Amino acid sequence: MLKQNNYGKSHIRLIKVARGSRVHQLQHLAVEITFEGDFEEVYTAGDNSRVLPTDTMKNTVYAFANQTDVIEQVEAFGVRLADHFLSHNPPVAKVKIDLSEHRWSRILVNDEPHDHSFRKDGDEKRTAFIIADREGVKVKAGIKDMVVLKTTRSGFAGFVKDQYTSLPETDERIFATSVKAIWTYDEPRAATDKTWSGVRRTILEEFALHDSRSVQHTLNKMGEAVLEKYSDINEIFLSLPNIHCIPVDLEKFDLINEGRVFVPTEEPFGLIEAHLTR
Amino acid sequence: MLKQNNYGKSHIRLIKVARGSRVHQLQHLAVEITFEGDFEEVYTAGDNSRVLPTDTMKNTVYAFANQTDVIEQVEAFGVRLADHFLSHNPPVAKVKIDLSEHRWSRILVNDEPHDHSFRKDGDEKRTAFIIADREGVKVKAGIKDMVVLKTTRSGFAGFVKDQYTSLPETDERIFATSVKAIWTYDEPRAATDKTWSGVRRTILEEFALHDSRSVQHTLNKMGEAVLEKYSDINEIFLSLPNIHCIPVDLEKFDLINEGRVFVPTEEPFGLIEAHLTR
Amino acid sequence: MLKQNNYGKSHIRLIKVARGSRVHQLQHLAVEITFEGDFEEVYTAGDNSRVLPTDTMKNTVYAFANQTDVIEQVEAFGVRLADHFLSHNPPVAKVKIDLSEHRWSRILVNDEPHDHSFRKDGDEKRTAFIIADREGVKVKAGIKDMVVLKTTRSGFAGFVKDQYTSLPETDERIFATSVKAIWTYDEPRAATDKTWSGVRRTILEEFALHDSRSVQHTLNKMGEAVLEKYSDINEIFLSLPNIHCIPVDLEKFDLINEGRVFVPTEEPFGLIEAHLTR
Amino acid sequence: MLKQNNYGKSHIRLIKVARGSRVHQLQHLAVEITFEGDFEEVYTAGDNSRVLPTDTMKNTVYAFANQTDVIEQVEAFGVRLADHFLSHNPPVAKVKIDLSEHRWSRILVNDEPHDHSFRKDGDEKRTAFIIADREGVKVKAGIKDMVVLKTTRSGFAGFVKDQYTSLPETDERIFATSVKAIWTYDEPRAATDKTWSGVRRTILEEFALHDSRSVQHTLNKMGEAVLEKYSDINEIFLSLPNIHCIPVDLEKFDLINEGRVFVPTEEPFGLIEAHLTR
Repeated sequence: MLKQNNYGKSHIRLIKVARGSRVHQLQHLAVEITFEGDFEEVYTAGDNSRVLPTDTMKNTVYAFANQTDVIEQVEAFGVRLADHFLSHNPPVAKVKIDLSEHRWSRILVNDEPHDHSFRKDGDEKRTAFIIADREGVKVKAGIKDMVVLKTTRSGFAGFVKDQYTSLPETDERIFATSVKAIWTYDEPRAATDKTWSGVRRTILEEFALHDSRSVQHTLNKMGEAVLEKYSDINEIFLSLPNIHCIPVDLEKFDLINEGRVFVPTEEPFGLIEAHLTR
Repeated sequence: MLKQNNYGKSHIRLIKVARGSRVHQLQHLAVEITFEGDFEEVYTAGDNSRVLPTDTMKNTVYAFANQTDVIEQVEAFGVRLADHFLSHNPPVAKVKIDLSEHRWSRILVNDEPHDHSFRKDGDEKRTAFIIADREGVKVKAGIKDMVVLKTTRSGFAGFVKDQYTSLPETDERIFATSVKAIWTYDEPRAATDKTWSGVRRTILEEFALHDSRSVQHTLNKMGEAVLEKYSDINEIFLSLPNIHCIPVDLEKFDLINEGRVFVPTEEPFGLIEAHLTR
Repeated sequence: MLKQNNYGKSHIRLIKVARGSRVHQLQHLAVEITFEGDFEEVYTAGDNSRVLPTDTMKNTVYAFANQTDVIEQVEAFGVRLADHFLSHNPPVAKVKIDLSEHRWSRILVNDEPHDHSFRKDGDEKRTAFIIADREGVKVKAGIKDMVVLKTTRSGFAGFVKDQYTSLPETDERIFATSVKAIWTYDEPRAATDKTWSGVRRTILEEFALHDSRSVQHTLNKMGEAVLEKYSDINEIFLSLPNIHCIPVDLEKFDLINEGRVFVPTEEPFGLIEAHLTR
Repeated sequence: MLKQNNYGKSHIRLIKVARGSRVHQLQHLAVEITFEGDFEEVYTAGDNSRVLPTDTMKNTVYAFANQTDVIEQVEAFGVRLADHFLSHNPPVAKVKIDLSEHRWSRILVNDEPHDHSFRKDGDEKRTAFIIADREGVKVKAGIKDMVVLKTTRSGFAGFVKDQYTSLPETDERIFATSVKAIWTYDEPRAATDKTWSGVRRTILEEFALHDSRSVQHTLNKMGEAVLEKYSDINEIFLSLPNIHCIPVDLEKFDLINEGRVFVPTEEPFGLIEAHLTR
């Protein structure tokens, strides 16, 4: 018995250029489309008569990207796609569109931002998630792969000790993490560039300013600050992998390491996650 | 308000050697541990008095691995760990242990398997998932990153066409995918090496033998075959990303490509997923 | 002044299927093509009249792959390509073709190898390097990403100690590495499948059988064995990154780890390399 | 016969914090150390008496990083390490130190750079290469993984056509690449932060301003500009993989794509490289 099914296209890569003026604009996206619905016959009988091929999903993304001359906010693009797929495909009960936007900044020439030349900012991405069904559409936005580090104002003490404890308590450690955040808007039109930038700034500032007693403690502070400032956000999920920076033990060489030299380790890592809501 | 939270340690890497006889045995694991429970004060007040550090989780994995001289089945190791964490940490409501086992085979010397030398088989992994709470323990097992390809007996036709369709119908295409499967046992003791190997064999054989009308069609066949053969498995999830192999168009060079030369593409990819149950 | 230049196409991916009989054959390659030659005007004057586009290089690879019904040995395919490019492009002084072949094995159905269904063996690759100029052609072959591990018969002792030494001497450690080997044939026709398989077997057997005093020591043994057995190989390069497997210190928990539990670490790693010749 | 050998430690990861004032500074490095020299007995006889273990190399990096309170320029750190290894290890003929520096910027709080909180800038790295032997020391510096893109002022036409040509000529295409540059200083003391930043700025500005007829053409312009401006740089190597951005063909859907929508492709890619010298 088929209990649940979904299908779609992942990693549809897209670069869009707006050439309306001498000053070009650039958008770099990866799009993922998922359908859920009444597709049982596809699985059980090999009957494809209700299947929109994932290849067509891909083509649709490119065709829709071509419809606007200007650069469109990523959430709006996702909603347009979801509407199209839902209204043209009766067997589909739910469409999910996940978008991931790479960040580019203008190259400076003589200290001025250049008209048509760009530099990729790194791994950090703006994300958006559209979940549309026959009842309506929900919009989420987020940040992925934003790596931050603070060199002080972070400790971890007072924790449970048992026979396998070797971690020393500390009131002074490096705190490094790769922020993943996803927040849910009350309604789609609340998803503006301004709010997105504001949430990002809030998360960064809270990270910088917080006197952290644990990753959990700072995660909560970030989430609370976002919910306080942005009344049209009703929930936020934060995932903070702890990128451990271990002080190098130099005592065996008769040297003192006064919080100066650390080994950043990628694995294993602590993973701290929570959903905050009103 | 904290709605949901979890924390733990990911990618605890572990190699275990059994040296009980001249013929050594090798096990290579990555372990991930997640706690859910009553940790609200950690987040809101920075009170760590109920937190078992993720560093201690890691130490516990190594200490427990050291307790047996022989190589232990991965599900049993996970259950031991889950039991320990649950019984020693009152605030914990649920413990999840995810295990991922790399496959190694013995190096052949004069066509004989060698006593203590091994070659890594590749990316394919055996996986296990232990979900334990105060009510009991659930055990799942799986396969990850098993890449398979068939050169015929696969088609895709009769699908929906719209204004963005360009994919031609075909009754002859390459079908390649990276199998991810997760199945749920009725009870923990059903999780044997023999059943795991049997499920893997079943999935491979169904893939080879099926006359596929779509990825969905073959996914369903694999899942049904597993549920039919193994009565103590009550559910299976299959995720089959479609690794598209595109026939190279050589007509523009006045050449005919009779199903001979293909470009395997990694992105974008179709992603087909389903849960089957009894 | 332009001192040296090269250009070409990397990562041309290719799957080839031989359908001559009911038993299909599969080949999965990545090809890289590099031209060196008299291209100064391209750089200094933007004059492209001597440039064969890298896009055409790619097309040529596919067209040439299509020319044979059967699966061709990777070195032969590379030589054909090199000959073509050299004879049709007068400005080219040297053509390099690097080929990397993924390994697939047949899926077993009822313990019999299946006719047209395959499973990817993992990351290990067979490599080949064709270097062709107006004087002639040189053929090299190799292995890449073959990960091996032995649980005993490996030590490391008697080394230099200074004020920064903390590594203990040992006559019993895990030796794990990812073998990269490249060997040079006296003449192109010496590059047979049989020799390639023989070299691979020799490297694996020497790794298994050697009483290793260091990575260097075993590297040398491998290289010498290959040069001894295969008189038409005149040089071999071996690169053996040391994948350190660190015994977990459990003494702090009053436990004894008798060579049972190890952490495999990916970074940092020792890197040992040498060229052996007659 | 051992023709050539080298050994060392790769990917020694290091974070250094300067806490001299309230305004902390951060440095994030990966260091690779390679020794060449008279190590024949290690290979042939398993005699380790001349081998400095790679583990000790790693410890030395951390100990030396701890010797300065302030953040040290990456080239100077490399030269200190090379001097140490060369003067304390008589069998060593040549020491190479490769350094790779990750870029972090300060988090802004109320639009002011924060004292002790940082955000990782992405994949771009500053690199340095120290090659030291008994005759002296050579210093190179570089950039790695700097991804740039321009939306106009780039064409590719007038190239060779043959029977496998399908690429259309164009005077308007997207030019995207991941810049790798390595330049050689006349003498070590020429390696200043100011020169490094100047070279980076020059490369970015030339990329932005050049009317490009090919990747080669722009590569040459970048290299010439650096050699012209910086008289103490005597050679520069540039490697520019062509990240192809293919205009999506929408004509089959009766749509016109006026340079608006592109697919960025990672593989295959054109690779263009050259050394420029005076």
